[in-house]
Amino acid sequence: MANQNNQKGELLKKVASHAKEYGFIFQSSEIYDGLSAVYDYGQLGSELKNNIKSYWWKSMVQLHENIVGIDSAIFMHPTTWKASGHVDAFNDPLIDNKDSKKRYRADVLVEDHIAKIEGKIEKEVTKASKRFDDFDRKMFMETNPRVQRYLGEIETIKARLKKGLEGDLEDLKKLIEDLAIACPVSGSKNWTDVRQFNLMFDTEIGSLSEGANKIYLRPETAQGIFVNFLNVQKTGRLKLPFGIAQIGKAFRNEIIARQFIFRMREFEQMEMQYFVKPGEEMKYYGQWKEFRMKWHLALGMGEENYRFHDHIKLAHYANAASDIEFDFPMGFKELEGIHSRTDFDLKAHEEFSGKKLQFFDPKDNESYVPYVIETSIGLDRMVLSVLAHAYTEETLEDGSSRTVMKIPAPLAPYKVAVLPLVNKDGLPEKAMEIANLLKLDHNIQVDVKDAIGKRYRRQDAIGTPYCITVDYESLEDNMVTIRERDSLEQIRIPIDKIQGEINERVSINSLLKKLL
Amino acid sequence: MANQNNQKGELLKKVASHAKEYGFIFQSSEIYDGLSAVYDYGQLGSELKNNIKSYWWKSMVQLHENIVGIDSAIFMHPTTWKASGHVDAFNDPLIDNKDSKKRYRADVLVEDHIAKIEGKIEKEVTKASKRFDDFDRKMFMETNPRVQRYLGEIETIKARLKKGLEGDLEDLKKLIEDLAIACPVSGSKNWTDVRQFNLMFDTEIGSLSEGANKIYLRPETAQGIFVNFLNVQKTGRLKLPFGIAQIGKAFRNEIIARQFIFRMREFEQMEMQYFVKPGEEMKYYGQWKEFRMKWHLALGMGEENYRFHDHIKLAHYANAASDIEFDFPMGFKELEGIHSRTDFDLKAHEEFSGKKLQFFDPKDNESYVPYVIETSIGLDRMVLSVLAHAYTEETLEDGSSRTVMKIPAPLAPYKVAVLPLVNKDGLPEKAMEIANLLKLDHNIQVDVKDAIGKRYRRQDAIGTPYCITVDYESLEDNMVTIRERDSLEQIRIPIDKIQGEINERVSINSLLKKLL
Repeated sequence: MANQNNQKGELLKKVASHAKEYGFIFQSSEIYDGLSAVYDYGQLGSELKNNIKSYWWKSMVQLHENIVGIDSAIFMHPTTWKASGHVDAFNDPLIDNKDSKKRYRADVLVEDHIAKIEGKIEKEVTKASKRFDDFDRKMFMETNPRVQRYLGEIETIKARLKKGLEGDLEDLKKLIEDLAIACPVSGSKNWTDVRQFNLMFDTEIGSLSEGANKIYLRPETAQGIFVNFLNVQKTGRLKLPFGIAQIGKAFRNEIIARQFIFRMREFEQMEMQYFVKPGEEMKYYGQWKEFRMKWHLALGMGEENYRFHDHIKLAHYANAASDIEFDFPMGFKELEGIHSRTDFDLKAHEEFSGKKLQFFDPKDNESYVPYVIETSIGLDRMVLSVLAHAYTEETLEDGSSRTVMKIPAPLAPYKVAVLPLVNKDGLPEKAMEIANLLKLDHNIQVDVKDAIGKRYRRQDAIGTPYCITVDYESLEDNMVTIRERDSLEQIRIPIDKIQGEINERVSINSLLKKLL
Repeated sequence: MANQNNQKGELLKKVASHAKEYGFIFQSSEIYDGLSAVYDYGQLGSELKNNIKSYWWKSMVQLHENIVGIDSAIFMHPTTWKASGHVDAFNDPLIDNKDSKKRYRADVLVEDHIAKIEGKIEKEVTKASKRFDDFDRKMFMETNPRVQRYLGEIETIKARLKKGLEGDLEDLKKLIEDLAIACPVSGSKNWTDVRQFNLMFDTEIGSLSEGANKIYLRPETAQGIFVNFLNVQKTGRLKLPFGIAQIGKAFRNEIIARQFIFRMREFEQMEMQYFVKPGEEMKYYGQWKEFRMKWHLALGMGEENYRFHDHIKLAHYANAASDIEFDFPMGFKELEGIHSRTDFDLKAHEEFSGKKLQFFDPKDNESYVPYVIETSIGLDRMVLSVLAHAYTEETLEDGSSRTVMKIPAPLAPYKVAVLPLVNKDGLPEKAMEIANLLKLDHNIQVDVKDAIGKRYRRQDAIGTPYCITVDYESLEDNMVTIRERDSLEQIRIPIDKIQGEINERVSINSLLKKLL
């Protein structure tokens, strides 16, 4: 277990390093030594991200008659964030060490302390497992008095932490003191009080004398949908239930941002708000949970890597909530949230704007504020899930090894690489002919450099699902070899069959068909 | 001419109002009375914008073997903007009226004054044109002493304004005083000095004690490409010439933002930087001018609506520059810029970062900083050009009138509307069958409400290029009627031919083929 965790910890580092080496993801402004928790998508990452966007957008908007998309601005009127509660309650609890002058998230200090205790448990487990051949981890955990004491400690700490995060900042400070947590920099236990720090970025719009306004960079895309709810419903003549989908950037000034692109200060969301008649929300909540899981599974990245995590404790605006968790290198973590948000947001905007945000239901001849089911997925997390699942080190039959990115074919940055066996004798020209057949429909590459084996390795490393090799025979029989990335299977087919074969296997439509 | 200008002024208002009424574009945060110069794209506008993006991206990245895309963050290290010159020189000259306390852009005050003189000229022209049957505008302008005096005034003012904008802020103030320009609010001529106001939005990243940094929202996407130049070149093993393309948001705190979505505070750019060997830039500058014009013309919005405007006075970083101007409702204005930017940006980043940003040329066995040709198009302006060109009020043969959005078919929000003649007797089911044939490939609508004529009018108004009508006969002969939006031509074809017919006419590929 400890070993497995280490391997998985290693995996995140390997993925990040591979992503940089091949042009998936770079640290932002790297030549200026980077900007913490901000990343740039390179030539491969941007294509991968675009393909995910396209899959999501088509599956939500094109396949659903009653869902439309919008693209609202990052800048919104500041009252939006009063209404949504973000101005007052979108905070992290921060604490300063008086000696080092370093600032920390109080909850992270406590969680790091818990991790240390968990480390001690693992030590006990490892020690015991070496002594007994038929070691039973579960039984040992349940019976060993020392482990039991550690587990009890953790439980107590977690309970107090939860209370602290719910608002008892004084006890949160006391908890840090009680646990004798020291500043990692100064080693001192000399702490300030815990204070709340708002996570929204703000800026000034307009010039001072025209009445400059403090505005915020949106911390979520959802509110752009809520404030446009009636505009879209009326101009689109939509009837309940209907949905509004949106893909866009959001910003959070995370104090502790880490784990590569899992938690960033600038990130991208794909959100859909589904407006329904009050009382019918549980039916649609269930349907959306099912559809969203189906969407993920259609990628073929392994059913075992996904699970639902139904929330026991709900946010103040929700009456049901569930996460789709993915088995990231750091373990199972939230990839997507499906939330039944009631009429909380629309009602709040009614109150703060003084405008009615109601749907007139011609069937029942009544007006009401709809309830909302939200599906919200972090696009960057989605990219990370694909990269982490794809990363594979393999030993081949001939004893050689390769690193291959087993990215679902429809999401791969390049769909096809056309490889003339040699860079002469008309083979490159033949390769260009094939490229011209494919390039209108797909992002493809022609690669002429290096020996063919080296080129295969390179295409494996960037996740290209199909390599088409043009050899001398191709000039005579108009046939080429198609090599599949994961199975390494090779088939020989006529050039005029390529388009059909490739379309079938790599188009976004091949995913969409699984959702019908 | 005056009349024509009025009509065109009207056109912008009509387009904005139509865009709002049908769900193309809404004022941002409208329920909170809006945010000045920020707009949201509604259900139709977001699809139109996505189609333009797709056309641009595929034509630049997919069709060009040596161009790759990236997606860099909006947040960049602040030194980026020192190097690019934006911290020091990205300013607007502002002036305050001491009585009203209102702030204005000094150059806009002067330009408004010029507009007034132009108004006087038009008055003279109109007056004279009524007196003479064979009125010759050009001759009148060239000979009438009063008009000649006005034109001379304008010339003098423009020359001083230019000098003022180049840095002579004192004379700019004096110009405003000399012209006796009064504050539109207070009517007073009591002005402050002119001062420079930086157009970048700033915010703080990180928390205070970890050393918060003032960062900027990028005012252009180009720098995200420059700072990643070497990362992309190396990890993508690219050789000169090669290009990096990017689509993304940029932000400018415009004091006077107006003309609908033509100049916004939050906007989107589609930029490509093409890196070439120094000395070869003029060849590629010419090629890119040609290709970019071809790209626009492929849309079929009329050759007469585009023109090149070669810059006489160049920015400090350019050795050649040209705009592609479009005939907007406000007249010919910049839609896209093609600039030969020399090595200005890369050299500046070398200097400020201390890192070499050079390409090693294996052919000539030497290293150098490449020169750059940039093509930069405002996505929102592109949307405006399409909407404004599309907007048409027509009287039909039967005497009825329609408002039709003649949007190029591959860019239209909905490609097809399937319309069962009546909402019963199995016709809606037949319509759904047809919809299912098309919905994987295209964004389509099934519309069952209202009489067929009303539905045609509605599809005209949202720019749907093809309506497929399902009637009672369709149930028997499996044929349907396809109606083309602009010509109103109707053809009857078998259902199994629909997919091919539609694909041929509405896919982005149909545009791309014109570029090959």
